Amino acid sequence: MILSETSRTPKTAPQSQFLTILSREEALERFEAALFPRDLPSEVVSLDAALGRVLAEDVAAPRDVPGFDRANVDGFAVRAADIETAGPARPVTLALNNEILACGIAPRIAVVTGTATPISTGGVIPRGADAVLMVEDTEPLDEVRIEVRRAVAPGRFIAFASSDLALGETFLRVGARIGPPEIGMMAACGIDRVPVVRQPSVAVLSTGDELVQPGEIAGPAQVHDANGAIVCATIRENGADAKFLGAFPDDEEKLEAAMRGALARHDMLVLSGGTSKGAGDVTYRILDRLGEPGIIAHGVALKPGKPLCLAVCDGKPVVVLPGFPTSAIFTFQDMIVPVLRRLAGLPPRSDASVPARVAVQIPSELGRAEFAMVSLVKGEDGLVAFPTGKGSGAITSFTQADGFVRIEPLADEWPAGKEAEVSLFSSNLRLPDLVVIGSHCTGLDRILGLLARSGVTARSIAVGSLGGLKAVKRGECDLAPIHLLDEKTGRYNAPFLGEGMELIPGWRRMQGLAFRIGDARFEGTSAEEALRRALADPDCLMVNRNAGSGTRILLDKLLKAARPSGYSNQPRSHNAVAVAVAQHRADWGMTIAPVADAAGLGFLPVAEEHYDFAIQTNRRDRPAVQRFIETLQSEAGRQAIRRAGFEPV
Amino acid sequence: MILSETSRTPKTAPQSQFLTILSREEALERFEAALFPRDLPSEVVSLDAALGRVLAEDVAAPRDVPGFDRANVDGFAVRAADIETAGPARPVTLALNNEILACGIAPRIAVVTGTATPISTGGVIPRGADAVLMVEDTEPLDEVRIEVRRAVAPGRFIAFASSDLALGETFLRVGARIGPPEIGMMAACGIDRVPVVRQPSVAVLSTGDELVQPGEIAGPAQVHDANGAIVCATIRENGADAKFLGAFPDDEEKLEAAMRGALARHDMLVLSGGTSKGAGDVTYRILDRLGEPGIIAHGVALKPGKPLCLAVCDGKPVVVLPGFPTSAIFTFQDMIVPVLRRLAGLPPRSDASVPARVAVQIPSELGRAEFAMVSLVKGEDGLVAFPTGKGSGAITSFTQADGFVRIEPLADEWPAGKEAEVSLFSSNLRLPDLVVIGSHCTGLDRILGLLARSGVTARSIAVGSLGGLKAVKRGECDLAPIHLLDEKTGRYNAPFLGEGMELIPGWRRMQGLAFRIGDARFEGTSAEEALRRALADPDCLMVNRNAGSGTRILLDKLLKAARPSGYSNQPRSHNAVAVAVAQHRADWGMTIAPVADAAGLGFLPVAEEHYDFAIQTNRRDRPAVQRFIETLQSEAGRQAIRRAGFEPV
Repeated sequence: MILSETSRTPKTAPQSQFLTILSREEALERFEAALFPRDLPSEVVSLDAALGRVLAEDVAAPRDVPGFDRANVDGFAVRAADIETAGPARPVTLALNNEILACGIAPRIAVVTGTATPISTGGVIPRGADAVLMVEDTEPLDEVRIEVRRAVAPGRFIAFASSDLALGETFLRVGARIGPPEIGMMAACGIDRVPVVRQPSVAVLSTGDELVQPGEIAGPAQVHDANGAIVCATIRENGADAKFLGAFPDDEEKLEAAMRGALARHDMLVLSGGTSKGAGDVTYRILDRLGEPGIIAHGVALKPGKPLCLAVCDGKPVVVLPGFPTSAIFTFQDMIVPVLRRLAGLPPRSDASVPARVAVQIPSELGRAEFAMVSLVKGEDGLVAFPTGKGSGAITSFTQADGFVRIEPLADEWPAGKEAEVSLFSSNLRLPDLVVIGSHCTGLDRILGLLARSGVTARSIAVGSLGGLKAVKRGECDLAPIHLLDEKTGRYNAPFLGEGMELIPGWRRMQGLAFRIGDARFEGTSAEEALRRALADPDCLMVNRNAGSGTRILLDKLLKAARPSGYSNQPRSHNAVAVAVAQHRADWGMTIAPVADAAGLGFLPVAEEHYDFAIQTNRRDRPAVQRFIETLQSEAGRQAIRRAGFEPV
Repeated sequence: MILSETSRTPKTAPQSQFLTILSREEALERFEAALFPRDLPSEVVSLDAALGRVLAEDVAAPRDVPGFDRANVDGFAVRAADIETAGPARPVTLALNNEILACGIAPRIAVVTGTATPISTGGVIPRGADAVLMVEDTEPLDEVRIEVRRAVAPGRFIAFASSDLALGETFLRVGARIGPPEIGMMAACGIDRVPVVRQPSVAVLSTGDELVQPGEIAGPAQVHDANGAIVCATIRENGADAKFLGAFPDDEEKLEAAMRGALARHDMLVLSGGTSKGAGDVTYRILDRLGEPGIIAHGVALKPGKPLCLAVCDGKPVVVLPGFPTSAIFTFQDMIVPVLRRLAGLPPRSDASVPARVAVQIPSELGRAEFAMVSLVKGEDGLVAFPTGKGSGAITSFTQADGFVRIEPLADEWPAGKEAEVSLFSSNLRLPDLVVIGSHCTGLDRILGLLARSGVTARSIAVGSLGGLKAVKRGECDLAPIHLLDEKTGRYNAPFLGEGMELIPGWRRMQGLAFRIGDARFEGTSAEEALRRALADPDCLMVNRNAGSGTRILLDKLLKAARPSGYSNQPRSHNAVAVAVAQHRADWGMTIAPVADAAGLGFLPVAEEHYDFAIQTNRRDRPAVQRFIETLQSEAGRQAIRRAGFEPV
């Protein structure tokens, strides 16, 4: 069940659990205190299977590496004293011993004074020799003698036994994460069985009557379970093994059986959904009887993530995550991953951060720490952070972010323009080649897709046409896709450009009225006539668009003073309009032709709007911008736009 | 076979392949030009198996997310216009519709003027409603009516359909690496089958008569194959699948069959060993007939890594790595991983770097780019880099490094004290809590092991006693383990301290003469008598120690003016001395008792040396230093030192 971040439920008393909200730090401290210190179980795996695992014991070298004094070049094993007088003009002759020390051959003959033994790189230095002479510094006299024209220092070109690893030397410590270098060191001294921390096995369980799994068809009112998959993936990325047990409806008996089974077979249990009511109440009742000490923290002064619940049942951690994806994921990363990594024997994740100027004001709730997700672009004097917040229900507000800004409990906003330290989700921040901020269109997706194939990475941030124009003016993006009708001149876009800006022509999008096929009020007529009929029918419900959108301007022009039923229903996208009509929440609305088509709706064309790209002229020569323009104007680009249902200029 | 970085072989003409040495950049460019562009084969995997893989196609949303207009709080679905006049003093009454919109329930009843429908977070907004009223802003009047004391704006607490992901919206691009966020987005719109780039299958094959695999016993002159394991691990860390085919002796027919078989079944072939002679010549002859265009580059002006060979056989890359581990690994990371990642569809690794002062001079060879491995410690004004170079034959010189410094082909050194930009091997540089630079001892390993268990990380860099003293003076380390005998006073260590420095007492180590058990010249006598006999026997060979070591000082004192046979054989460690004696390269040498014991040698005690820790007094209060001292002086610490064979002070 996708559940609330509010603290009360309809028709019930306030929930007692939320009365003692802990700070993030206090909740984490209590949780860790109930779990640690503890011994981590270990197991022995083959060297081959040890990559990425964590050492459960120190590792000492069972032998010296090299195991013998080794030649580092091809040449001759000699006694340095024999040739200390040798020079280009004063060659010294040495007799060759009757063996050749190729790799893998143990010497039989000692190098006595006046003799030398041919040796390959990696060969074993024979008794008596104390240096290797490079072959370049010798001349063969005959089959059994060489002439030496250069002295060598004792020890030259010898890697002494144990100079790399010494027998008994501890070269890896308990807790080390095993990467290729660690694999290499263990191999070099012959180790092929490695004691590692056993990976914690974590059971993951979603709760909610409305959930279906990816791959299943979601009926009306059903949603795909994203938390199960993302929590499992995050667990696997942090050194543990995840077992997804599926989604459970709010049935106390079945849920309890599943939770008891999970705790019997696994080291940890993570539930998502069920933190404020319904399933929530059920979960808490079950948690109360699953084991001691039970619930440690319920409700954390943290946004997103407030309804988090932490419990320990007979030594095993149990976590109930908020149901909304961004809350669930962020909370898991912030508060559960540190515990998971300790259970897996891994060191804490090290978090990188960068300074950035926050582009727009971010409101925040007083009284709890708030983490605002932001995406970063390069501004004219450093990085600029844009909040990606579509709210905690949106999976994309997490996934499109580069990191987050922490707003302290005592602040009610992060002011626009203020510098922030952005904690990065990945230590490798990769800024895109091209930044596009403004109005979104599926045609833009197609062009950026072609660009991606040619190696140009782009970031597209949807803030609407006017927001895009502002970003262009502040130098925060390369391109702002806009579709703004100037009512005075009847012209699109160009009247809105500021100084030093120009327009790159994009494409035309047909706006019109969408309706359900078969609706006699709209079928087979014109937009004007359909509108007349809709306004005349009190049962005919419209769906509007948000103020400031190009579509709304057009609609208001059509409606004149009329305010039909549904006018106040104002979603922010073409798709939302189509979905409202398709799902009978409204009977008609204005959207663009391809969106109406994709939703299986009828469509009455009204006007063609211009979707163009505003740009500062001084950015036009940037290579990524040039590639964008080339792609847009190429035959492939024009075809892609047509396939998306639009008309290239 | 472990082979050379020199360019000629004994008794043969210079190898023609090395006559055209390419720069690193040119070699890489030619290699990539012969391989790319190419289509990457793809496959479809389940969402569950997609973590870490690379998308082979753009992914567009097959449905809107949310799929319906969704309530974001628990409350009532209403028409905002109905309650626009509501306030605390002017409540508005609404009639409750006869349905409760819990999650997963499709609405049947429209919200008409004057009515409201109870709805849970995540519930579907019914037809006619345009806002959700929070339960806190209402009072139940009776079972069928509520009183509303607050107006709401249209759209309040509604997440409109498609506001997260829009049907048809491309939300992931070809080439994206699939992490938890990407998994979450695909799950949220119901995708459970993911088109990914097929992981390249890379065959790895070691060559050399002297190789045995980890887990096997290495005979005299044999070495454990480290390159096979480390190359396989590096391949797996870079998005490909590694298949280790084993080590092959230098048999042309068998090697050719193995190489042909590998290329038939895999996408790429990596050989290590065999780059300068013997196996090398065999490999090149085979490469010449394996497919077009064959060898692309052989010999690269790069250190470590010069004898690298790059080939393309009928479109498949074949790489022959240098045999020495550090050369092999570094070359693989630097030049092969970029190609491997392109084959796997992955973006280039982003390399982080940090500025650091290089502590000591690093000599470099003119004419080729040299990459000097360094480890980093915190100095008094920034990071300090110490070269870890034990040479390209040493696996530890790679594994103990944090990164490397590039020395240009036209420089013959990196001067001591000069700032360098250190390219990091991992983007997360983790500096240790405690830095120990000086003389190494297995007793120190035990103490640092105890410290590690209590959570204090330490780095120990072995540069000898005098080097450690310098590092302490420059503030580059916390502790310098030293064992220096002042001949004038006969006292250990204290006479060597500088101003502001003090000594933390460590332990005593018994120095003595090691010999093979059964050697009648040494068995059952005193050190003095044994020495007398050794000097009297011209066939009796000693092994010495490097000048400046405490052991050498002691030996020279014993030998007085005598310079017995083997005196010039001067390895740098206790273990190397023991190995030389055990392997009959020498008959006696001076080492410490536990090392002689571990090598199964007889031992005649000579003198007890003091192994103590020099420290700047102003560092003594650092928490990690305090923990070190506590551990050293604890009962557990003293027992650990005794178990290592030493006597705590």
